Amino acid sequence: MVKVLGINGSPRPYGNSFQTLKLALRAAELEGAEVELVNLYEFEIKPCLGCVSDNVKACVYPCPINDDMVKLYPKVIECDGLIISSPIYWFGVSGLLKNFLDRLTVLENMIYVDGRSWLDGKVVGFIAVGSDEGAIALISNLMAVTNSFGMVIPPWALAYYVGEGSALEDSKLLLDSANVGRIVTLMAQVLKGLRKPPTVWYRADDYYRKLIHDIATEIRSNVEYELGITPP
Amino acid sequence: MVKVLGINGSPRPYGNSFQTLKLALRAAELEGAEVELVNLYEFEIKPCLGCVSDNVKACVYPCPINDDMVKLYPKVIECDGLIISSPIYWFGVSGLLKNFLDRLTVLENMIYVDGRSWLDGKVVGFIAVGSDEGAIALISNLMAVTNSFGMVIPPWALAYYVGEGSALEDSKLLLDSANVGRIVTLMAQVLKGLRKPPTVWYRADDYYRKLIHDIATEIRSNVEYELGITPP
Amino acid sequence: MVKVLGINGSPRPYGNSFQTLKLALRAAELEGAEVELVNLYEFEIKPCLGCVSDNVKACVYPCPINDDMVKLYPKVIECDGLIISSPIYWFGVSGLLKNFLDRLTVLENMIYVDGRSWLDGKVVGFIAVGSDEGAIALISNLMAVTNSFGMVIPPWALAYYVGEGSALEDSKLLLDSANVGRIVTLMAQVLKGLRKPPTVWYRADDYYRKLIHDIATEIRSNVEYELGITPP
Amino acid sequence: MVKVLGINGSPRPYGNSFQTLKLALRAAELEGAEVELVNLYEFEIKPCLGCVSDNVKACVYPCPINDDMVKLYPKVIECDGLIISSPIYWFGVSGLLKNFLDRLTVLENMIYVDGRSWLDGKVVGFIAVGSDEGAIALISNLMAVTNSFGMVIPPWALAYYVGEGSALEDSKLLLDSANVGRIVTLMAQVLKGLRKPPTVWYRADDYYRKLIHDIATEIRSNVEYELGITPP
Repeated sequence: MVKVLGINGSPRPYGNSFQTLKLALRAAELEGAEVELVNLYEFEIKPCLGCVSDNVKACVYPCPINDDMVKLYPKVIECDGLIISSPIYWFGVSGLLKNFLDRLTVLENMIYVDGRSWLDGKVVGFIAVGSDEGAIALISNLMAVTNSFGMVIPPWALAYYVGEGSALEDSKLLLDSANVGRIVTLMAQVLKGLRKPPTVWYRADDYYRKLIHDIATEIRSNVEYELGITPP
Repeated sequence: MVKVLGINGSPRPYGNSFQTLKLALRAAELEGAEVELVNLYEFEIKPCLGCVSDNVKACVYPCPINDDMVKLYPKVIECDGLIISSPIYWFGVSGLLKNFLDRLTVLENMIYVDGRSWLDGKVVGFIAVGSDEGAIALISNLMAVTNSFGMVIPPWALAYYVGEGSALEDSKLLLDSANVGRIVTLMAQVLKGLRKPPTVWYRADDYYRKLIHDIATEIRSNVEYELGITPP
Repeated sequence: MVKVLGINGSPRPYGNSFQTLKLALRAAELEGAEVELVNLYEFEIKPCLGCVSDNVKACVYPCPINDDMVKLYPKVIECDGLIISSPIYWFGVSGLLKNFLDRLTVLENMIYVDGRSWLDGKVVGFIAVGSDEGAIALISNLMAVTNSFGMVIPPWALAYYVGEGSALEDSKLLLDSANVGRIVTLMAQVLKGLRKPPTVWYRADDYYRKLIHDIATEIRSNVEYELGITPP
Repeated sequence: MVKVLGINGSPRPYGNSFQTLKLALRAAELEGAEVELVNLYEFEIKPCLGCVSDNVKACVYPCPINDDMVKLYPKVIECDGLIISSPIYWFGVSGLLKNFLDRLTVLENMIYVDGRSWLDGKVVGFIAVGSDEGAIALISNLMAVTNSFGMVIPPWALAYYVGEGSALEDSKLLLDSANVGRIVTLMAQVLKGLRKPPTVWYRADDYYRKLIHDIATEIRSNVEYELGITPP
């Protein structure tokens, strides 16, 4: 069994970042992953203090800052795959997500204690959604960051949508984000020796398109229900 | 008279981001600017809530979030030039600075109220310092962001240093950061009709090098004194 | 009088990059600029040889490579404003345009001969058009490059469009690209002492919108005519 | 057996990009790969014509442009791993390499013919070397591009060096670039079912450091010999 953790970096409940991430995680479940979705806005995450500037060994796990990261670190440590969903805020991730990412440095820095990054070999995928441009600038940065953490970026690990309205109405985004969930799971399974590499990574057949479309419809309907009883 | 505001995005008192910014502001003063240095870590700055996703007019000044940005907005509104100094955190700005920048959206969005961004025509310069690479990735992003706010990027508006130790020992950084302060000031003066454009923007003559070197020595000496009485 | 040079980095005659650049140049003319449009595909531009790695003074004007850059350098040297229009090729500029930009290093490097970059103080604006994402990644890079050349980036110096079909049918792109042409011209005039800074840089009034729309219609109609008699 | 192809994007024979790539390929051989190094400057590679703008199916293999890419496509198609080494030219790849990358679009676009990118599942690593900053901006872009081609980015797939002098004198670069070669090979072997995933991807033990150091010394000595008999 592989565990896939979804990180929602948007401050907004039930918005496009959440919905698209939800779809990716549903697609991960279809491949046999155990999944969990974390809304960062539900946690207090203070900015990194940059202790590493004084001494690289001052920045190791556990991080000296006392906040809700204490609840999030174990989830990251235990996952085999990570899917990061960010709204596009001025051509980059939200400040909320930036603080989370900066704070992961303690896990990478375990290389100075254990000879091994605690993120080494985990698989990662990316979702970026916004009303203005910048998805590739955002995702390019996340790729360099997570790969420097020691993470694996499997094929087609990126899904993005730039525009107004509901992202899940865009058929390309639907398929791309489902494949992010699917491919992160498959790669994590391969790297744990649980399965052979697939012949084709990106799935785009009609049966799959229909399946994903139906799941997306269900997600949107649930979100509308939630928003109905939980006014924004 | 022009006002130049320096924003220190580092969480660390008296570090390289602070020292380099201090130098840039001293160079701005030499050209006649009134300057102020703000350490973001002294203020509580909550993450942007992305209200703009609901309605562009929900994101206008004053921002509905209740925190210390109420003290910072007037400083940004009143300045003619802005110098942003960031540590390089995973190839980007600190989360602290990202939150500050995201929260400036309300000023840019005044275009929907007044027909004019409240940042339109202000001049901006950039400093990035870190122990690992990523300065250009960071500054490229800030250039696109601030230009989209409506700000002017004058010639040679970037100074960066990647390495260990004291940034102010690097002679190229010294001259580059002093010129950021100088050039932001000159451009702000030109755009206010206070002076003619200079013949040469970047100043690198021996007299200026010596002057900047002496100021840098004084800044480092003051920092050592402060750190002596305020242990890190 | 100021001269504004438009560089079309697309290999395609009469495509979106060309049309959008044409519109920006027409808007520049409205403000009194003398304009010229260069299609890079009409010139042989060999890749930079990186002589600067041996010796910084080996990379000064005139560039030792013998090709059509000899016709383009004088145009760049004489212009007061430059507008770079690039198609989005894999989240960056075309290889054609990259070669052109790399070859401009000799002008910047005159700083080692004259104490002054030959691009110092020129004004620059950017247009990026493509069918897939990456406009901001592309423009962010160009901003850092041209600012490192010593060029001025005036407010709102970026216009971009991501999508299929004719870019000039997008009303936001129309207004943004016209303003790139307008604002590059105004800033060049200010920096030559030919006029005072404008009160508002970005023009969006109804009269201007109508005017730009009409010019765009004329450009598209001319392009259709050209494509009719000059099959692609 | 896996094949690893090294692409040298520098126009300069025997320079830092070449030497570092050579080291990565030697490290790949140590893990059992069959390797080949291609100097792009030995081939005529014309700029992409952007046919995809007219019709996505106009951009499929074989590319209609008649030049030396006809010799390079088979090498790319047959490799299991690809290592791209670029000099840092204005915060991005060389124009030479940009043309090569743009021209690979026909392979990715086979998705419209075969339902599968011809680059799907190949493994890729990156080397960037230059005298000025920009390595991360360059590599971030290449990561987004190659992942959009369908390629796998294994852990720690990036090595970079910014500075003057011989890159191979920098011990961090040595180890990082050897690991790029090593890890690209291991991942390609895992994905072909030739071996199990390694426990630790990045190797930094003393024995390996010594081995890599010795290989680097040999490479530098060979280069000096070549430069002696082939004046630059």
